[in-house]
Amino acid sequence: MDNLKKYIRSVPDFPKKGINFYDITTLLENPTGFNLALDAMEKFIVQKNPTKLVCIESRGFIFGAALSSRMNIGFVPVRKPGKLPYKTISEEYDLEYGSDKVEIHADVLNADDKVVIVDDLLATGGTMEAVCKLVEKCDSQIVGISTVIDLNFLPWREKLSKYEVDYLISYDSE
Amino acid sequence: MDNLKKYIRSVPDFPKKGINFYDITTLLENPTGFNLALDAMEKFIVQKNPTKLVCIESRGFIFGAALSSRMNIGFVPVRKPGKLPYKTISEEYDLEYGSDKVEIHADVLNADDKVVIVDDLLATGGTMEAVCKLVEKCDSQIVGISTVIDLNFLPWREKLSKYEVDYLISYDSE
Repeated sequence: MDNLKKYIRSVPDFPKKGINFYDITTLLENPTGFNLALDAMEKFIVQKNPTKLVCIESRGFIFGAALSSRMNIGFVPVRKPGKLPYKTISEEYDLEYGSDKVEIHADVLNADDKVVIVDDLLATGGTMEAVCKLVEKCDSQIVGISTVIDLNFLPWREKLSKYEVDYLISYDSE
Repeated sequence: MDNLKKYIRSVPDFPKKGINFYDITTLLENPTGFNLALDAMEKFIVQKNPTKLVCIESRGFIFGAALSSRMNIGFVPVRKPGKLPYKTISEEYDLEYGSDKVEIHADVLNADDKVVIVDDLLATGGTMEAVCKLVEKCDSQIVGISTVIDLNFLPWREKLSKYEVDYLISYDSE
């Protein structure tokens, strides 16, 4: 889907010197581009027939919420620690320096749920792997992972090899 | 729209003792409830005929993104500091203790834009007031504010008196 690339802005030196950031805000501000991406994500998700979309804060909320509304599938947020008000379960994961954590409400998924996880981008795969563990702690089945961008020079594939992953566009280098 | 209230969970003592938190995640996980809220927000927004929806991180992203897709109106994120990759303008505002800041991309709005601002909830109005100032710094016109919940025992009305505000449900006390 390389026609989607024209909606994405490349921002040099963000978040730090030498990194080229693929900015989806220029896609979002253009409803034609945004809906083109959503149509393509929906095409993959509908085949998986999920009962819930698990959406990762914050950019995953944007794609996940629009898909949830148009596909009539429940939206389930995964958030940073301390943001979800009810009882949660959490999963820690390593960053380059230090660690981070993601949380999900403890009562929102169960063994009957088939889940597609939604985010904007796959890079190192660290956050996505932690979210997969969270969903599996809830005894739910992961039937797919849906994202917009694949940074294929970063190692998410090793971490997510047991899942079916869909993305719309790939970048080969920073 | 009090029929929406049955989808919203009340969580005592969050984020701190004595506060009753109105939890929209139970609305979001139910696509009937979520779309009921979106239909009602759309009804207000369509009358305002905006060129852009300015959506506040993170819960405003959820409602704003779904509305943007279904109404074919560009989605513009307002985020916490340091999250937007391109050139930004920012606005600081006071909290109970200390201050906080919101940012918008400097090039995304202009004098031709008519904006509806989208968030989940109106409480003290501090964040929303700062977002209004941001939009006006871009020389754009604010044609409405659309939210789900009004906490009518908190003072947002004084801060937003010059805008047309729509909300779907009101709570009279914590």
